[in-house]
Amino acid sequence: MIDALMNDREIRRAAESARPGDEPVQTLARAAWSVIAEPGDGVAGALIAQLGAAEALRFGLSDESFGLAEKAVQDGRRRWMPRAHPRAVRDALRGAAEVGAQVLLPGDADWPSAVDDLGDHAPTMLWVRGEASHLAATSRVAIVGARAATAYGDSVAAELAGDLAAGGTMVVSGGAYGIDGSAHRASLGAGGATVAFLAGGVDRAYPAGHQQLFERIRSSGAVLSELPCGAAPTKFRFLARNRLIAALGAATVVVEAGWRSGSLNTAGHASSLGRPLGAVPGPVTSAASAGCHRLMREYDAVCVTNAAEVREMLGIDAAPTADTDRTDPEQVRLLDALSTRTAHPPVELARLSGLSVERTRALLGTLSLEGTVKQEENGWRRART
Amino acid sequence: MIDALMNDREIRRAAESARPGDEPVQTLARAAWSVIAEPGDGVAGALIAQLGAAEALRFGLSDESFGLAEKAVQDGRRRWMPRAHPRAVRDALRGAAEVGAQVLLPGDADWPSAVDDLGDHAPTMLWVRGEASHLAATSRVAIVGARAATAYGDSVAAELAGDLAAGGTMVVSGGAYGIDGSAHRASLGAGGATVAFLAGGVDRAYPAGHQQLFERIRSSGAVLSELPCGAAPTKFRFLARNRLIAALGAATVVVEAGWRSGSLNTAGHASSLGRPLGAVPGPVTSAASAGCHRLMREYDAVCVTNAAEVREMLGIDAAPTADTDRTDPEQVRLLDALSTRTAHPPVELARLSGLSVERTRALLGTLSLEGTVKQEENGWRRART
Repeated sequence: MIDALMNDREIRRAAESARPGDEPVQTLARAAWSVIAEPGDGVAGALIAQLGAAEALRFGLSDESFGLAEKAVQDGRRRWMPRAHPRAVRDALRGAAEVGAQVLLPGDADWPSAVDDLGDHAPTMLWVRGEASHLAATSRVAIVGARAATAYGDSVAAELAGDLAAGGTMVVSGGAYGIDGSAHRASLGAGGATVAFLAGGVDRAYPAGHQQLFERIRSSGAVLSELPCGAAPTKFRFLARNRLIAALGAATVVVEAGWRSGSLNTAGHASSLGRPLGAVPGPVTSAASAGCHRLMREYDAVCVTNAAEVREMLGIDAAPTADTDRTDPEQVRLLDALSTRTAHPPVELARLSGLSVERTRALLGTLSLEGTVKQEENGWRRART
Repeated sequence: MIDALMNDREIRRAAESARPGDEPVQTLARAAWSVIAEPGDGVAGALIAQLGAAEALRFGLSDESFGLAEKAVQDGRRRWMPRAHPRAVRDALRGAAEVGAQVLLPGDADWPSAVDDLGDHAPTMLWVRGEASHLAATSRVAIVGARAATAYGDSVAAELAGDLAAGGTMVVSGGAYGIDGSAHRASLGAGGATVAFLAGGVDRAYPAGHQQLFERIRSSGAVLSELPCGAAPTKFRFLARNRLIAALGAATVVVEAGWRSGSLNTAGHASSLGRPLGAVPGPVTSAASAGCHRLMREYDAVCVTNAAEVREMLGIDAAPTADTDRTDPEQVRLLDALSTRTAHPPVELARLSGLSVERTRALLGTLSLEGTVKQEENGWRRART
């Protein structure tokens, strides 16, 4: 197939104009893999890692019996063959050119190397609309959640995303209705960068109602997909897409999620990648928070209530730990015994507090230095605050 | 002092009528400790453990210089002496008799041995109004929380306590306004047993507005304190009382708590006793839930959303784990490709799903046995559900 692609002048020219100055063979080989393999196809990933994209294509689609090919590759070949048509690659490149989508390959300056942590399940390439340069942001967080979000979830997502984006953290999400949309919108509103990973081609607005949101995201961030233009978002592709959101975020925060929400899938990917996972709690009476509570119970997700705690997960800064409460039990006992109106002698205060007279005198000394107690003619009383 | 108490005929008679048929010396010695030592006085506890209550009293209050006494005991003596008056013990016993409070000593059949886990900080005795027999319940949970509870917190506390009490679990709390009150009330409403630990004497209703609630608790549970009748509830005693709630509960659940709520103190006691700790999540926008979220973040509290999850903490039964979602990725991909209206041949389904034709045929076989897909003249379609 790679030879057929290289020998077709029109297809070759499309690859050259997609990446001016670059050898078209890489572009064509990876575009072909993007077309013939479903997202996260580990056999394709392993072949590409071993042989390079072009040679993997030659080997993977060969009719010849290599004998040495493992069963996994033979099975893969049977999956890939039904889709291996040069015209499908041509359509993908043509579709990308029509909407001005960029072809991003591993190793490119803007390639988000965080997704390479997916190993054989890393994307073979990315189709990008917007500013690919944002993908190289050093501080990145995934904020995801239920489509059927409540007003509470939407407002918390917006507050978290807005705060984080304003602080220079790029917000990654899935472009869906509900939590995803609120996170993207608040990031944009805060003048920050945001990235939406789609489950279908970047030429399609899915959901359609987010057409304008995607336009805004493209102007201060990026809309991207591992699937070629024209590809439909299927349920499987939504699940596969979630691994990219989890991989691109240095941490994942789930804001609202039903008991079986797809966000739990994203959370699972974050966990298996060893990325910190956070969940926003909500009322136990709200079905929209049930998945978040489940993440805390079953996936060891950290309870996250504000942007500072998310930054703490990202290792950016620590949460404030101011705690100036009085905790010395003897001081508490003595203060219990002191009156603000009537002064008592130390002996009486000792009896009331159950402390020794000596200890009472010592503590009164300390507390009077603080200005907490006052000495009068008849003894000590608590200062009014 | 113990001799002075035994030699005072009136006091001795009070002890005998408090525990008919029992040697009065134990009753008097422990009542004296209840009067002279503040709750949780570890030096008193250690002395009693070593010498027995009566001998500990003799040694602890002796004017003689034993020489061998450690500094801790000398300090203790200085705390205890100002309160060591026989009339204070007499008043305690008299006050108990007036309100019908029972004197419960370690080793009694109804003594809640769980509190002995506090070691030297265990109570020297308990003053009980109501049915002491409930204290020996095998299934016990502490449900506590903020006085300034919200309607949400009150209703969750009531639901948890009602469910648990109805299932035979005794609910332990502190008799305060807010969460405590809701937990007690719901336990009573469910016909279950509940126990309130007070920070002052059991002859006082504190808070006064819970006078009637305490009466109801006494009729199907117990109101108890380690402090003698007449003792005022001080801030220190509230904190000390919390250790008894945590110790009596086999697990502690905090329903609502502000950032610095006293309930966090109860939670800390539960943790240091190695008892499971649960916290109920709430909206991150609610200050009344901030302490619960803090417990999850900083004290490793388990997120608890219903009574079944509390029972799981108590080891009574496991939470349901029904999960019949379809998780096989190949099945998901094939189902994505299938239409409910148009039948497709396996070759076409293979192309759409990215699976091999062979695998597609095998999966169609499995799914048709389930009734999920139907074969027609032109191929396969998804069955309507």
